[in-house]
Amino acid sequence: MKSRLSIIASASIMFGQICMAQSNPPMAEDWKPASSNQQGKQYPQVNSEGRIKFRIVAPKAQSVGVSFRESTTFTKGEDGAWTGYSRPLDVGFHYYTINIDGAEVPDPNSLFFYGAGRWGSAVEIPAKDEDFYSLKNVPHGQLREIHYFAKSGNTNRHAFVYTPPEYDKKPRKRFPVLYLQHGAGENEYGWGSQGRTGWIMDNLLAEGKTQPFIIVMENGGNIGGGPRPAGPPAGAAAPAGATNGAPARGPAGPGGRTFNFSAFEKALIDDLIPYIDANFRTVANQPNRAMAGLSMGGMQTRAISLAHLDTFSHIGVFSGGSIAEKDIADMAAFKKKVKAVFISYGSKEGGAAVAKTNVESLQRAGIRGVYYESPETAHEWQTWRRSLQEFAPLLFNK
Amino acid sequence: MKSRLSIIASASIMFGQICMAQSNPPMAEDWKPASSNQQGKQYPQVNSEGRIKFRIVAPKAQSVGVSFRESTTFTKGEDGAWTGYSRPLDVGFHYYTINIDGAEVPDPNSLFFYGAGRWGSAVEIPAKDEDFYSLKNVPHGQLREIHYFAKSGNTNRHAFVYTPPEYDKKPRKRFPVLYLQHGAGENEYGWGSQGRTGWIMDNLLAEGKTQPFIIVMENGGNIGGGPRPAGPPAGAAAPAGATNGAPARGPAGPGGRTFNFSAFEKALIDDLIPYIDANFRTVANQPNRAMAGLSMGGMQTRAISLAHLDTFSHIGVFSGGSIAEKDIADMAAFKKKVKAVFISYGSKEGGAAVAKTNVESLQRAGIRGVYYESPETAHEWQTWRRSLQEFAPLLFNK
Repeated sequence: MKSRLSIIASASIMFGQICMAQSNPPMAEDWKPASSNQQGKQYPQVNSEGRIKFRIVAPKAQSVGVSFRESTTFTKGEDGAWTGYSRPLDVGFHYYTINIDGAEVPDPNSLFFYGAGRWGSAVEIPAKDEDFYSLKNVPHGQLREIHYFAKSGNTNRHAFVYTPPEYDKKPRKRFPVLYLQHGAGENEYGWGSQGRTGWIMDNLLAEGKTQPFIIVMENGGNIGGGPRPAGPPAGAAAPAGATNGAPARGPAGPGGRTFNFSAFEKALIDDLIPYIDANFRTVANQPNRAMAGLSMGGMQTRAISLAHLDTFSHIGVFSGGSIAEKDIADMAAFKKKVKAVFISYGSKEGGAAVAKTNVESLQRAGIRGVYYESPETAHEWQTWRRSLQEFAPLLFNK
Repeated sequence: MKSRLSIIASASIMFGQICMAQSNPPMAEDWKPASSNQQGKQYPQVNSEGRIKFRIVAPKAQSVGVSFRESTTFTKGEDGAWTGYSRPLDVGFHYYTINIDGAEVPDPNSLFFYGAGRWGSAVEIPAKDEDFYSLKNVPHGQLREIHYFAKSGNTNRHAFVYTPPEYDKKPRKRFPVLYLQHGAGENEYGWGSQGRTGWIMDNLLAEGKTQPFIIVMENGGNIGGGPRPAGPPAGAAAPAGATNGAPARGPAGPGGRTFNFSAFEKALIDDLIPYIDANFRTVANQPNRAMAGLSMGGMQTRAISLAHLDTFSHIGVFSGGSIAEKDIADMAAFKKKVKAVFISYGSKEGGAAVAKTNVESLQRAGIRGVYYESPETAHEWQTWRRSLQEFAPLLFNK
């Protein structure tokens, strides 16, 4: 595409025809290696338009492509490397796969992330607001990998726990806890890796914008008692060769209430929370316990928190539907027990308008409802990073 | 290969010729998905001979292969999937890469590990002694990811810290520390991931075979002040297409002393150790501080510990050379300060005999020297898992 554009541009200059160049503009030539690349890898690169430039060494391949829809046709250079370009993408984080002669494989240049149901490649598009989720020279918390035995499933389980910077400095202080869930096709690694949970919290704390709390990130997706939610997984790029023009979108909206999250609910309530309260310095009571999640994790949050109002006081649903007045069985009890309901969507997501209306009705009913809409983002991690950034300051400060 | 073997077997039965089948025996058909696979992936599979069976979906490819030398030619099935087999491999952990029409890419079925200079695929071959590095229902320590600012390099640095199960249970107790380094082409993830450090320690502690201590795993490979060691990286599979019959082997032996580890030495001594002592409940003195490493990390351990006898009391060098009497400048001081020198090799490695001789000479000089040889393993992680298993009980018990 790039070489074709050059030919068009040359021809346009030669013949004074510039309309082609206008309708199919040249790309900004300010390419930089993506921050999601493996160390030392120069590709993929990203430009100021949010386009990605790929370079895949496949000297004997007949065709090379990438899973971003509307990408250019890849062309092979004399060095055996194939080059191609994505369309301009939203800022933030996108999963992708490369395709070499029909084989869907990870890009060897990318770091690997779990999403779309597999460990695979992803690319980070810089954002104007990236400072809030960047590594800075501030006091850092720790991301702790834990293994524990869960009686509910008679199995060893695996989770990550973020402890704030002062956790080890103040050995007598106890901390509130947020249980934070990933989306469908993702796992317990998501929030700590592509979600940038640690750096978001470290930066908020350094600026005094939130109080310190523990965050627990478990796997809610592999033990569902019911069918897995339909539709593409959270944040998934369209599969290679897909011609569907609609943005990838996870399961969201009122349909979520029909899913069965009972196995995860049992693991969370009967095993994980008791384990965390026994092994971390928590304030082990309802006012100091929150639950939130993205997409399917938001649906889990809504289902489980509404069923356990004596367990959770703060509720966050990111791109996973909302809570309407009709969802609340006992309004008086809800108003007494629930200190905040936070609902968010990306502005490019379908559920945004309904969610906003529902939050406004909660507000009229006297509930502390907060609606947040992430500008110019869809059902992807940039929406959820921003959601955590907005949600954290609401927690446990009442 | 498999189908070809079947044809040979059939022909042998028909014509009463069994000599072919004897010289090229059929493979054991007890294939099981490798434990290093991504969740739900049925391939690669491993049999009781230590062979790997690969299945790579690449419908339009002209050729598919894998980086294990002496693998069979891959053949394409009607479903577009290519199947091929490795030779019988040593037990333990092996990095590999697949090749699709000349493109070296990760196997989308494998979990990803950092080694051989990249995040990529690896396969786990079960071992008779795998119990000691397996996840069991015992009390678990935590693997903590930390970020800290290092003045020596004016940069943010990244490390992992294993804390033993009782670390948070006994908030007034202080613990000794082992600084444990990876090999060339590896990074700070290696010991906690493919090295199984957490599970090895959890299991040793559950059986009362070691005392609890903290383990710090930093990146020693990306800030070398001098040239990177020559030779293939630690544990690397031979590159695809390699015909060299020799096992992959990292840099080891006396040549190691000529490398320049001064930048890492400075980061370790001036930044990392003070950070750990300030942020973890350590016993911050020489008798309670050890250093060990594998391959290049063993060479770093030897170089840095010999230069800092007032910092480290226990020294472990795994497949990274050894310490001879002539390496010790002041034998009286060394005998007084150093409580144990542990040297190990895999029995298939070249350096084993010299290392054993050197340890024996240390013993004769009155030093507590311990030599360990891992049976039937080469310059790979199974040697180093076993080395940690043997080294840990020697630590900090005077």
